Amino acid sequence: MMDKARKAASFNTYELTCLIHGGADIVKQRRAAFNRVEKLTGTLDPSKLPCSYGNMDREQAYDEGLEWGKAAFEDGITHKHTIFDNITPRYVLSNASPFGLTTVMFIPTLRLQATAEQRAKWLPLAESGKINGAYCQTELGHGSFVRGIETTATLDTNTDEFVIHSPTLSSTKFWPGAIGFSCTHSIVVARLIIRNKDYGPHLFMVQFRSLSDGLPLRGIDLGDIGLKMSYNGTCNGYATFKNVRIPRSDMLMGNASVSPEGEYKKSPHAKLSYATLVYVRTVIVRAVAFQLAQALTIATRYSIVREQGLGPNGLATTESALIDYKSQYYRLLTLTSKAYAILFASRTCDAEYAILRKQQDAGNHGGLPYNHTLAAGLKAWATQAASDGAEDARKCCGGQGYLMTSGLPEIVASVTATATFEGENYVLWQQVGRYLFKLIDTLADRKPIEPKMNYLADGWAHFSWMSPLATWRPSDGCVHVIHEPCSARGEQFLDANVQLSIYRHRALRLIFSAYTALRSSSLPPAEAWNEHMMNIINVARAHVEFVVLQEFVSHTSTLPASPMKTVLVNLRSLFALSTITNPASINAISFIEDGYLSLSQLSTIRDLVNSLLDKLKPEIVALTDAWDFTDASLCSAIGMKDGNAYETLMNWTRQIPINVNAKKDGGVYKSGWDGWIDPVLRARL
Amino acid sequence: MMDKARKAASFNTYELTCLIHGGADIVKQRRAAFNRVEKLTGTLDPSKLPCSYGNMDREQAYDEGLEWGKAAFEDGITHKHTIFDNITPRYVLSNASPFGLTTVMFIPTLRLQATAEQRAKWLPLAESGKINGAYCQTELGHGSFVRGIETTATLDTNTDEFVIHSPTLSSTKFWPGAIGFSCTHSIVVARLIIRNKDYGPHLFMVQFRSLSDGLPLRGIDLGDIGLKMSYNGTCNGYATFKNVRIPRSDMLMGNASVSPEGEYKKSPHAKLSYATLVYVRTVIVRAVAFQLAQALTIATRYSIVREQGLGPNGLATTESALIDYKSQYYRLLTLTSKAYAILFASRTCDAEYAILRKQQDAGNHGGLPYNHTLAAGLKAWATQAASDGAEDARKCCGGQGYLMTSGLPEIVASVTATATFEGENYVLWQQVGRYLFKLIDTLADRKPIEPKMNYLADGWAHFSWMSPLATWRPSDGCVHVIHEPCSARGEQFLDANVQLSIYRHRALRLIFSAYTALRSSSLPPAEAWNEHMMNIINVARAHVEFVVLQEFVSHTSTLPASPMKTVLVNLRSLFALSTITNPASINAISFIEDGYLSLSQLSTIRDLVNSLLDKLKPEIVALTDAWDFTDASLCSAIGMKDGNAYETLMNWTRQIPINVNAKKDGGVYKSGWDGWIDPVLRARL
Repeated sequence: MMDKARKAASFNTYELTCLIHGGADIVKQRRAAFNRVEKLTGTLDPSKLPCSYGNMDREQAYDEGLEWGKAAFEDGITHKHTIFDNITPRYVLSNASPFGLTTVMFIPTLRLQATAEQRAKWLPLAESGKINGAYCQTELGHGSFVRGIETTATLDTNTDEFVIHSPTLSSTKFWPGAIGFSCTHSIVVARLIIRNKDYGPHLFMVQFRSLSDGLPLRGIDLGDIGLKMSYNGTCNGYATFKNVRIPRSDMLMGNASVSPEGEYKKSPHAKLSYATLVYVRTVIVRAVAFQLAQALTIATRYSIVREQGLGPNGLATTESALIDYKSQYYRLLTLTSKAYAILFASRTCDAEYAILRKQQDAGNHGGLPYNHTLAAGLKAWATQAASDGAEDARKCCGGQGYLMTSGLPEIVASVTATATFEGENYVLWQQVGRYLFKLIDTLADRKPIEPKMNYLADGWAHFSWMSPLATWRPSDGCVHVIHEPCSARGEQFLDANVQLSIYRHRALRLIFSAYTALRSSSLPPAEAWNEHMMNIINVARAHVEFVVLQEFVSHTSTLPASPMKTVLVNLRSLFALSTITNPASINAISFIEDGYLSLSQLSTIRDLVNSLLDKLKPEIVALTDAWDFTDASLCSAIGMKDGNAYETLMNWTRQIPINVNAKKDGGVYKSGWDGWIDPVLRARL
Repeated sequence: MMDKARKAASFNTYELTCLIHGGADIVKQRRAAFNRVEKLTGTLDPSKLPCSYGNMDREQAYDEGLEWGKAAFEDGITHKHTIFDNITPRYVLSNASPFGLTTVMFIPTLRLQATAEQRAKWLPLAESGKINGAYCQTELGHGSFVRGIETTATLDTNTDEFVIHSPTLSSTKFWPGAIGFSCTHSIVVARLIIRNKDYGPHLFMVQFRSLSDGLPLRGIDLGDIGLKMSYNGTCNGYATFKNVRIPRSDMLMGNASVSPEGEYKKSPHAKLSYATLVYVRTVIVRAVAFQLAQALTIATRYSIVREQGLGPNGLATTESALIDYKSQYYRLLTLTSKAYAILFASRTCDAEYAILRKQQDAGNHGGLPYNHTLAAGLKAWATQAASDGAEDARKCCGGQGYLMTSGLPEIVASVTATATFEGENYVLWQQVGRYLFKLIDTLADRKPIEPKMNYLADGWAHFSWMSPLATWRPSDGCVHVIHEPCSARGEQFLDANVQLSIYRHRALRLIFSAYTALRSSSLPPAEAWNEHMMNIINVARAHVEFVVLQEFVSHTSTLPASPMKTVLVNLRSLFALSTITNPASINAISFIEDGYLSLSQLSTIRDLVNSLLDKLKPEIVALTDAWDFTDASLCSAIGMKDGNAYETLMNWTRQIPINVNAKKDGGVYKSGWDGWIDPVLRARL
């Protein structure tokens, strides 16, 4: 069945693989790297039960993470590639590896925030693995709100040292990756204190462990925070400092600096430190596209081979494959369109970040607010889409999707973490909203705004011309004035510009209406913000969805004509149109609540979605194969490339230690039977 | 902070506790039972790390399940109560216990489908725990589609026996609870074969294990299916049968029967076997209300004590509690309203089932289709609401919600299973749709329908009077004719009847529009069904949401006037109105796509939701306390009644074995350091 489904595709899968990964050379390099690491970790043979599925106690999980982490980290150095700098060989973000923080946080932070001398000292050590770095920011009592950090770094001018200290229980560093037992050094975020003056959070290089025996240095208490939903291959940990002394020169002084006498020199650009955040979020956006695609690859393959029921409405005479049920391929294909939407958006995010870094190196930080907002918004949108999508893909596999051996629970559990870390999504949405409103304030002052945001300027011109703020009815918080219903009909809805106009109208209407409601509110600013918070979040999401569609359009329309392009263009239309009518879409009513789309237009859109689904159904296996996941990286009994779901599942199941051991006793779990079951049977109750 | 938040409530929490559990006596009995079991399992002391959080390998998880299961099962027998017949002391469905299937499936099935003699033989043994029963239906290749079951039971008239056999790999029984290592007997669903004639799936009593030593009987291969997302306290297992012989008299012949000569007597009412399904689904609906409430209890308490940021828009001078952010109490309170909505709906479901059983005992099975649909629809709706809601409550706790020690991952993982088992939700939605369309066929034939569904009859009268099917435009699949916009304004939207009218209009419009589109389709029936499947699912959901609101209204409006009633009525309005405007609501556009509600009416509804949220915010702790969860049943470091989240979290964390062991070595995880980290540091790469 798999072969037939695979052959049904109209385009060359390898061509799409190259598009996804950025060229044939990279595809070749990646395949070689995965093969080496999988060989080294003994995971190449798909008939062997992956050890993590047999048992998963805390120690075993960490041991496995150490093995994978070492193999991936050393492969990158030995073969001079960065493939595993940001993701593990299972496509989880590298902070899932005990050696991953050094590449994903430690080195990038040094590059951005250390002095030339500090970089010369630390980077060679970190890049060659002679030290294993981490990044300590989050505390038991303080997450996304960095200014609340309580750990202190107090200057002692007599000894020219900083004293790192944890003054309270809530100041305990809690969550940082690899600090439990793995890292040797860490950058620590602590409040800079000079002569009792608090200069707020700054970065300090602190050695945590002896390089000779791994023992924590004096005054540092380290440990593991225990089992998590996923990421158990690393030791997210806790750390407390009892008057730990470090040389003054180990404060990262690339930006702000402190002299031996205790003179504080401010950062030339306070926001420069945000660059690390922007970087990490661009990494996350790309990573979750692949994690969602992993879940979809497994669910799609299983849906091809799994039979269930007598077809739609039970009217067939033989059992039908899951994939033939509309609800199944509706869910899988719309989610697939989202995975591609995230991928293309991440391309833009990466490119913009590269430009920003060039500008910053030239001392120009003007692009930061735009890039910070772009990365924050895409991170919030993509991580939510990927988390919800991976879980729905898992549910598409029924009971089997609930088994660890399906690989899906681990994927879902790891991707859902991204909605929380590196900026909790609800916090990020509000940052996006704040940025949008600031731009409109600028426009209201008749000043120019960031050119990349000019669709706001156009909307504003249109809107302010049509009615000055004064004549408004903010009482019902709606902008009525810029409302002209959509005029598209029939196939016109397949036109990228029509699709963009719908998303643009929705975003502009929500932005201006929330802006007006907020700025004209009689409440104190904080209360007004709270009053309208849910709308502000909707505003941010609508803006980001417009941007995502925009990038989907730009990355597909520029492709040369080919069967692959046709498929990707249909996929883009499916994304654009199903986001309006999909029952699971978030805040879809804002597309139509002002009457912009009529009932019969919605009905047309639903019909088009149906025909797009039927067009794309034969492509579904190729669209997931194209991501080029190895069987070992999926680690799924039901999602392997060969489609032998039941054989692999039973084969793995019989290898589970509790079964192997019970077989030795003739098929009974002795301790359980003797200790608990037999006593119940014999009890005279 | 907890005390202050607790005291803020306007009503008596205990009064609500009694309402939730059904009276003061039951509350008293439950508290005693939980206390006995928690004492017996050593989980009363909240300062002790629950063992499952230290480690969770396959064996330990099962051992813990055996201990809890035995304690709960025996407590029920000893103290003559049924508290733990359907849920564990952690509020998971009893199939999470190795002794739970006997009460939740085995005994109920015997009662419904065994003969008097069979009941007399088996029930006393099962009810006293002298045998431990299970229920074997699902196979590796066959889940919700029972007719696809492949296991055979062939009559051998020479020996007056049935031969139970697994003919294929896909016929392997896979998933049934407690069969891996725990059960002694099981009801097995197998195809009845007499003289090569296949009579389809029937039920057979099969002994799996020797009562003396627990060894599987000859020809039966049993084992565990391995780690799952949750339910690891029991041994969901696999079973294959190699020509296993049982007495002919061990087929459950309460309905269909087979004579020694092999004459088959049909069931008087084929659908009687559905009664078990209906029963189990009513149990699930009630259970998930409590599981969602568990997640909300933890998230609410943590949101009270957790501080994060400088308030809305960062304008405050001191850090604010999470609960003070609109997005936080919007999510928590709307989810709380859902938990109560599910609870009240389950009351109706239970009552209807009790009536059905009475009727069936009197030989009247007429109520089955209605009850089957009610239970199926509520199961699908409630399990989705509870799964999504529990996960969102978990996300409300940020990073801490990702820790096993928060208790939330386990709750989320166990509740999400209910969306899949005992009837996969997408299958159930379509059954509901089928039932609704059948009723309309009946109405079209001018015949009466089930009185409890009369809102359809009213809608039909209205609609058919306004336009005969002929004059329709099914092309765009919309009913235009029964569309009169909602006339409500301002506070009128707080009126239960206005709220009901909105839900009723939406349900009727979707039902009639989908019905017309389907019945007037030119496609073959199966293809037509597939073409419209997503709409049919929307139809079913809209109907069920109308029913849920109806029951929320009926259970609250009948209460005597009291502060508690005022709160519950506000909670009902919050449920009714936020379901329309909540960005996370499923298919909310169907409330407005026909223009039934205008933009300014939606704006009014959003304002009312805001004011309801502010009214209910002081009640939030009481509304979760009222469910009366013990600390041990929540098993959460951040959700204990006292609100000492950080103290408990750090206290538990330090007790985690990997930390305790590392401390003995001076703070290093020796094997990991020596085996993996040290080699990386020393490698010359």
